[in-house]
Amino acid sequence: MKPELKAFLDQSELDAFLYIGDSLCEPDMYYLSRFMASDRFTLLAGEKTSLLVSSMEAGRASKESIANEVVSTSEYGIMEKLHATGKPDEAYLAVLGEFLRDRGVRRLGVPLRFPAGIYRDLSRDFDISVVGSPASRWRAVKTDGEISAIREAQRACEEAMRVAVDLISSSEPKGEVLFRQGEALTSEQVRGKIEVCLLDRGCEAVDTIVAGGAVAVDPHARGCGPLPANEPIVIDIFPRSKQSRYFADMTRTVLQGEVDRDVEEMYEAVREAQDAGLAAIRAGTSGRDVHAKVVQVFRDHGYPEREGCGFTHSTGHGVGLNVHELPSLSEVGETLVERNVVTVEPGLYYPDIGGVRLEDLVVVTAKACENLTHFERKLVL
Amino acid sequence: MKPELKAFLDQSELDAFLYIGDSLCEPDMYYLSRFMASDRFTLLAGEKTSLLVSSMEAGRASKESIANEVVSTSEYGIMEKLHATGKPDEAYLAVLGEFLRDRGVRRLGVPLRFPAGIYRDLSRDFDISVVGSPASRWRAVKTDGEISAIREAQRACEEAMRVAVDLISSSEPKGEVLFRQGEALTSEQVRGKIEVCLLDRGCEAVDTIVAGGAVAVDPHARGCGPLPANEPIVIDIFPRSKQSRYFADMTRTVLQGEVDRDVEEMYEAVREAQDAGLAAIRAGTSGRDVHAKVVQVFRDHGYPEREGCGFTHSTGHGVGLNVHELPSLSEVGETLVERNVVTVEPGLYYPDIGGVRLEDLVVVTAKACENLTHFERKLVL
Repeated sequence: MKPELKAFLDQSELDAFLYIGDSLCEPDMYYLSRFMASDRFTLLAGEKTSLLVSSMEAGRASKESIANEVVSTSEYGIMEKLHATGKPDEAYLAVLGEFLRDRGVRRLGVPLRFPAGIYRDLSRDFDISVVGSPASRWRAVKTDGEISAIREAQRACEEAMRVAVDLISSSEPKGEVLFRQGEALTSEQVRGKIEVCLLDRGCEAVDTIVAGGAVAVDPHARGCGPLPANEPIVIDIFPRSKQSRYFADMTRTVLQGEVDRDVEEMYEAVREAQDAGLAAIRAGTSGRDVHAKVVQVFRDHGYPEREGCGFTHSTGHGVGLNVHELPSLSEVGETLVERNVVTVEPGLYYPDIGGVRLEDLVVVTAKACENLTHFERKLVL
Repeated sequence: MKPELKAFLDQSELDAFLYIGDSLCEPDMYYLSRFMASDRFTLLAGEKTSLLVSSMEAGRASKESIANEVVSTSEYGIMEKLHATGKPDEAYLAVLGEFLRDRGVRRLGVPLRFPAGIYRDLSRDFDISVVGSPASRWRAVKTDGEISAIREAQRACEEAMRVAVDLISSSEPKGEVLFRQGEALTSEQVRGKIEVCLLDRGCEAVDTIVAGGAVAVDPHARGCGPLPANEPIVIDIFPRSKQSRYFADMTRTVLQGEVDRDVEEMYEAVREAQDAGLAAIRAGTSGRDVHAKVVQVFRDHGYPEREGCGFTHSTGHGVGLNVHELPSLSEVGETLVERNVVTVEPGLYYPDIGGVRLEDLVVVTAKACENLTHFERKLVL
């Protein structure tokens, strides 16, 4: 058993910690097992790391996972139990109970996101505590290998950003819209080129944002239709490496055409806020303090915060197997430690001006941070 | 309120049904709201369909969702509660409690996958029942619009299959490996071409399988490295339309080079089993009966079932917003109804011969099924 797991179980008075889910939606399960499965399986982290999988997955789990043991539900007679009850959930629960008893566990921890139905049923026979998943906290501190994986994904991200920025810079403002090769340049086209570039580099990206003008005032709007001339366009790319499963994340804001003084000033404030955030990061400081530094820059510049306007989100978040994970750079941001990987992404959003956001990805070090992002910050192309 | 929701709530003696999660991992939430969010939000299905989202998502949710009302957590003072407690989970729970009380709900249903932590905490103040999500059952019966979306995704799937099969058929067996343009043709290359083709058609595919020889004996192995000559290669593609979010699914098995008699016989048995499964499908029959017909064909051919060998999986599954959803064509398969969309995918797997699988996607009709798959079944290229 790893020392941090032993310490956690001892402190929480637990025999083991139990996860049930798929590794796409439960990155903690992938983290602890390195077994990628889009179908539900069970992971028990205790004396050993044990996987309980369907017989169809047992061979692959034995080959691919780092678990100490892989057990098939057929070893516990899942089909016989299914024939007896006709109810897959009941059969699974019976198998699970036997699997847990055989491993001598009685006091079990389960994560906050554990399925309520299984929690309710298991509580009849086991002593179950719902507690924050320890793996979510462990994941916040990256190994060298994890940092390399994220660095590599960020390289792909920058190449895709280059493709996007080149497309926009090679377009022509005509009236209120950008044109390229005789046609309006759309969010969809730019996103498509970004995705092909990422695919070539072994990455996928589901929700890439290419949003201009008023659309970008909503920080999560993906953008659609012709891109505006003379207005800021936010490009936010968060690819995931298919091989390593680690994410990267970066945002740039660019403008093709004539720039308004308002937009220029907003961009400068965001750049200054980002610099202040980056300068504040070091092990031992808190995400809350970093966020406060960023907020202060916007206050100093006189940008008001109103419902849905101004700096409407937090300064940043951890990135790893999830695109949003611990630690947080926000009003509730915890203390940063070496090897945290976080974004620094201040933004300003006003319906009458548009949205501006700049996002870098950095590794927290003892005295500062290492910026994994080398893409220039330049508003007007 | 929709009649089927009213009937469900009345029968279960509930005021409303509550979901908490993100629409990527909880397709029921996307189904009921049509709001795509990768961050957690809350959906209450009762008198109205109500969304509780962060202030950053409120604008987009109002624009994009089909919910009757969108409420921002800031309307319930999430930030003030966060400042008071310092604990995001507690602040969220307090907001959620007020949101639910304001809507006059006391008796709440939550799905089996509902987060255990919130279930435990809400149970203190509300009467909570963990029950199967009704939306998962409603989703099994598709509207015309949903069938169109799946049909379109299956067209993209077939185009990608064509690309894959053409690559393999234009390769040359050299020794035990396929070569193309002077290099070994790999699983990764074929998968890459499939993914680019799908991307061009607005689809994504995460876990495409291109696996030959012994690798394909594990039905979920994605495949890697050079593809074998003279051995069956399983190609299983399940793309999701980025626009509609609906999946398609199909599998073909092909061979380039000299075919063994064993493989040919296995392929014929699988084709016959698939035909038997397809012929058995109609509204009113059960998924269990369809599965039994398929199993019988393999028995008639004398293929033994041993742990991890033979026909190791079920005959099929529903396809929609999830690639695996209701109904199931298996030993516990429920009664089929018109407008179910299911796969029919028998396969045989033996370590010494390889794997063969054929998978079509069909719509259940009153008297038969409509096959959405028009790609030829041909082993030797």
